[in-house]
Amino acid sequence: MAVYTHITDDDLSAFLEEYDIGELTSFSGIAEGVENSNFLVRTTTGTYILTLYEKRVDPNDLPFFLGLMGHLSAGGMSCPTPVSARDGKALKELNDRPAAIVTFLEGVWPRRIQPGHCRSLGGAMAAMHLAGENFEMRRVNALSVESWRPLLSSCGLPGHEIYHALYNELNVELGRLESDWPTDLPSGVIHADMFPDNVFFLNEDVSGIIDFYFACTDILAYDLAICLNAWCFENDGSFNVTKARLMISSYQKVRRLSPEELAALPILARGSAMRFLLTRLYDWLNQPEGALVKPKDPMEYLRKLRFHQKVSGPNAYGLE
Amino acid sequence: MAVYTHITDDDLSAFLEEYDIGELTSFSGIAEGVENSNFLVRTTTGTYILTLYEKRVDPNDLPFFLGLMGHLSAGGMSCPTPVSARDGKALKELNDRPAAIVTFLEGVWPRRIQPGHCRSLGGAMAAMHLAGENFEMRRVNALSVESWRPLLSSCGLPGHEIYHALYNELNVELGRLESDWPTDLPSGVIHADMFPDNVFFLNEDVSGIIDFYFACTDILAYDLAICLNAWCFENDGSFNVTKARLMISSYQKVRRLSPEELAALPILARGSAMRFLLTRLYDWLNQPEGALVKPKDPMEYLRKLRFHQKVSGPNAYGLE
Repeated sequence: MAVYTHITDDDLSAFLEEYDIGELTSFSGIAEGVENSNFLVRTTTGTYILTLYEKRVDPNDLPFFLGLMGHLSAGGMSCPTPVSARDGKALKELNDRPAAIVTFLEGVWPRRIQPGHCRSLGGAMAAMHLAGENFEMRRVNALSVESWRPLLSSCGLPGHEIYHALYNELNVELGRLESDWPTDLPSGVIHADMFPDNVFFLNEDVSGIIDFYFACTDILAYDLAICLNAWCFENDGSFNVTKARLMISSYQKVRRLSPEELAALPILARGSAMRFLLTRLYDWLNQPEGALVKPKDPMEYLRKLRFHQKVSGPNAYGLE
Repeated sequence: MAVYTHITDDDLSAFLEEYDIGELTSFSGIAEGVENSNFLVRTTTGTYILTLYEKRVDPNDLPFFLGLMGHLSAGGMSCPTPVSARDGKALKELNDRPAAIVTFLEGVWPRRIQPGHCRSLGGAMAAMHLAGENFEMRRVNALSVESWRPLLSSCGLPGHEIYHALYNELNVELGRLESDWPTDLPSGVIHADMFPDNVFFLNEDVSGIIDFYFACTDILAYDLAICLNAWCFENDGSFNVTKARLMISSYQKVRRLSPEELAALPILARGSAMRFLLTRLYDWLNQPEGALVKPKDPMEYLRKLRFHQKVSGPNAYGLE
């Protein structure tokens, strides 16, 4: 549940006076989301989202995130557009926290993924990659291959008897990822967290992509690999090749993947599985006492990792 | 935090097909509220609130609550209006829970009460009492004077050494309330829970009253007494007679209080203090393990009770 910081009507009304978006008519905390405090704010001019950035977000990254959303919006992508205050700044402060107002997007995120969602997502992702091409700011992916070994170490698995086998398995896989990780694929702005709850649809058409707080400069095809994991496995663990085929083919209609990018999909998918496995494992082993948010199951990603280890090549993803 | 039951986009879209309010364009869980699960739902025709009723609400009471909201809306009061489905029913079912869609109201509830809020509230409350006059359904106030002794007993204070003095004090006060409680004052529909978070304002004008889930048929002036407690004390415990005077005088501009009603205000205020003291005390002593909602301080209402015990008469509330 996602309101960590409460705000008063007086504070919010005073805050809105710094903007040219009319007067407050209503606001409510939004229950979704786990990182920041989000409020749906209505004014006499429209509907907005107010985010107060909590401690898991590095304030130094905020200009990149907000700049990127502004850039992508200006490039025609449907994503939250940061609203600048009268002083020209989109990044402000409220209740001692960094705060920003962005436009509200219609759409709902799909709880049950249909093939049509994957088809629409592929094209939207490719369009985002193209729209990001001339974005000048850069942000290193803090959760890419270099971070995985320290992350694995910090989980302290060898101290837990029952995790010995898992530790050995991940250690071997890590060595493989570190030696084989591609270094010369096209890179640019990726979303890096394009899970279903971050993509809004109207019917089966993408109406908007939100939550750019993991966005960074990295291998473009890695975004696709993340989505193969996040969108194309069924609840029973099976891989739905139809969904993958639709996602990749619609991506390619907007941005053609090179033979090198296609060939790298299995290793990128393994890396993506490792990244989410490790962060989930860390959160699993470090649950704060009385936490409101139940950590996600890390083992889901171990199963996905094993799937990609076994594929014979990118054709396993339904390439046409 | 108030989303106990999660719903999927598919379930919600299917649910909306039973209504004539257009297609789903977005929805989000609302973090406020403690009793039920509430969602802000946008469709192609407007904005609505969807409520799933959780176990603290007796389903048998829902026709009264929804009927009342419909009646008050039709009478010109700004409160959520239940939206009927195509089958004519406002009370439906979703995810195995009773569910209803009501209209969305603009406005924000005041975190810091100003005298102008109390002025506006008094008139709105009186207008609600008048609009409720010809409402035909009745609901006994399950939390009125007859319920307080069983409620006190269920708190089991005598079993806690440190609560002996409190138990004796409440026991004496209860005897007094039971013998002096008025029986012949005008009665009708009261809200019975008109706390600041249930009243929306635009500037200092009431724009709507929400949350009728304690509404019942009871002494009209008791609603006013509840609001004297809920709106007219400052954070330091002092009574703000200006706020009380504004509330009562603006109430009387819409509905004149009889001399008997005015004379009864101190005992009604004591009863109201006892009611919230006891329910808060019960919740305080019966906190579920790992509860998400922090119980409210019962002692705040002990101080309010003692204030009303000491007043010389209704003039203490600033009657003009």
